[in-house]
Amino acid sequence: MKSHETLRPIWWNDSVAPAGALELIDQTRLPTETVNITCRTLDSVWQAIKQLQVRGAPAIGVAAAYGVIVGLDEAKPGDATWPAALGEVCDHLATSRPTAVNLFWALGRMRDYGKSLGAISWSSARVALLKEAHTIRDEDAAMCRAIGKHGQQVIAENSGVLTHCNAGALATSEYGTALAVMYAAHEQGRKFRVFADETRPLLQGSRLTVWELQRAGIDATLICDNMAAVVMRDKKVNVVITGADRIAANGDAANKIGTYGVAVLANAHGLKFYVAAPSSTFDLSIPDGSHIPIEERQADEVRSLGGRQTAPADIPVFNPAFDVTPARLITGIITERGMITPVTAENVRKVLGK
Amino acid sequence: MKSHETLRPIWWNDSVAPAGALELIDQTRLPTETVNITCRTLDSVWQAIKQLQVRGAPAIGVAAAYGVIVGLDEAKPGDATWPAALGEVCDHLATSRPTAVNLFWALGRMRDYGKSLGAISWSSARVALLKEAHTIRDEDAAMCRAIGKHGQQVIAENSGVLTHCNAGALATSEYGTALAVMYAAHEQGRKFRVFADETRPLLQGSRLTVWELQRAGIDATLICDNMAAVVMRDKKVNVVITGADRIAANGDAANKIGTYGVAVLANAHGLKFYVAAPSSTFDLSIPDGSHIPIEERQADEVRSLGGRQTAPADIPVFNPAFDVTPARLITGIITERGMITPVTAENVRKVLGK
Repeated sequence: MKSHETLRPIWWNDSVAPAGALELIDQTRLPTETVNITCRTLDSVWQAIKQLQVRGAPAIGVAAAYGVIVGLDEAKPGDATWPAALGEVCDHLATSRPTAVNLFWALGRMRDYGKSLGAISWSSARVALLKEAHTIRDEDAAMCRAIGKHGQQVIAENSGVLTHCNAGALATSEYGTALAVMYAAHEQGRKFRVFADETRPLLQGSRLTVWELQRAGIDATLICDNMAAVVMRDKKVNVVITGADRIAANGDAANKIGTYGVAVLANAHGLKFYVAAPSSTFDLSIPDGSHIPIEERQADEVRSLGGRQTAPADIPVFNPAFDVTPARLITGIITERGMITPVTAENVRKVLGK
Repeated sequence: MKSHETLRPIWWNDSVAPAGALELIDQTRLPTETVNITCRTLDSVWQAIKQLQVRGAPAIGVAAAYGVIVGLDEAKPGDATWPAALGEVCDHLATSRPTAVNLFWALGRMRDYGKSLGAISWSSARVALLKEAHTIRDEDAAMCRAIGKHGQQVIAENSGVLTHCNAGALATSEYGTALAVMYAAHEQGRKFRVFADETRPLLQGSRLTVWELQRAGIDATLICDNMAAVVMRDKKVNVVITGADRIAANGDAANKIGTYGVAVLANAHGLKFYVAAPSSTFDLSIPDGSHIPIEERQADEVRSLGGRQTAPADIPVFNPAFDVTPARLITGIITERGMITPVTAENVRKVLGK
């Protein structure tokens, strides 16, 4: 069993006077600087989410749950006024980012839990609400660990793994989803090598994934996205594992742009392609991936890098943030409830218990 | 017939006193600035090649041929000493870049031509040598035009074309190879749209290709390399056209890293994949692509962009500069002597007349 200091992007620091505070790793400064931010005000939590200092849907949910305590501590409510203050804090945090479903889910859970407490004192309510935020964090961590446990056998001894974007500890409370599988195999003492796509345009692979893997002592090599095909052809990798942002009822999976191309290449080279994601990522209300809307982002993400212009200023750009990988290209979907394989609507329902 | 001002990256400017000079577009400053360099000394020509202010194998050859005149003008040889000076100038320019075959070819041609002139005066020899440099340029331009003529029919009305890296006017004397096909179709008045991969790590697509196409009035859209698969799946493109750096006797083609992946994706989506390259790109001494050595370049090209670090400073990197696309994935090779299709060793020999 190998171990390394667990990477947690979000935590509650009890030792910050007077009553503790939310702390975060500022992900916008990685990998060149590892800087923690202490959030003592509601606005600092709101800004941390807005400015992507914390990113990744599960991580945003956890940050928001702790952010509720920060906001209430700042408001200093009385025994009669804390329920109204809780509502206001949740409403404000919900405006930080429009698309992260886990944000609304976590805030809704804190709000509902507050209501369930009834007419108790603020000091008792605070103890209970902080405990609930810890529970949200702990449940997310347990889910990631379960994904790792169910997935780790897909990484064989002395094999190579390719991943795209960042589905790691930094995107969750700890451990990650796709990277949870690698961390679990690493903890088993298995030797393997990871190739990480840099993931243009926002470089989550080079900024976050290889930083995480290197920190954990996993052998990681960075490549440009257009080198994945050669890495596969030269048999440097045996398996591909990515995360997912939304999965349809038939198993079609939306993930960071470039994932579909990696899946087609894996298929052409006879490699297994796995998606690792919690059951909360599934949207059983849509039958297939054609119903997943794809966000197109601003052109300057592609026309520049690190603030430096690299293309004609007015050149048209096509910049979809996500793409959809059809179920037929996915060997299996690794969830906290087990592996869905082969990927069919029936097996999705069976493993999710729906 | 549409027309646009012909883009020439290299030319001889007779009006520079006292006897003319080599001028170049500084490609390291594109696309944000279009700056011409006047080379009046041998060292300035050497530096322009070394520092990639001129790049692309045919373009380097043309620049070197004119550079011979620049070097001799600076040396001011006499009627008896110009043959020795010619040898020295050629020897020095040959040290500017180690791998560009056209550099040695062009210098060898100037040297041999000088020898063939016999014991004539320096003023007569200079007239003849400058004429030979113009001939080298003109032959390259004619070759590019012929590639355009033989290839243009692969671009249908209202179609979409994908290209990778820069095989354009900037890489040759004018017009290019892969882009020659697009310029020729455009001159026929055909309407089509080009998607250009940005081509990490050095971004020849965003810096050079879309700049060239936009300048020529061709509808060009920039994408990240990892978006090519979605562009193909969504039927935004019907055909792929790239250049090549070296082609084996069986038609296996080495080109900029990422080309192989694009070819696999084109194949998976039922799209035609063409390579456009002059006959001088063929190396009939090697039976197939496995004999083409692949240069691995420095890690910092991938770990940073525009001088800004984007990955952990010590993260291992795999950074091959080229990859090999097997002949079976190539629909046809467009040369100045006609189209090689299907791509077999026999058809390569037949079209090249070997």
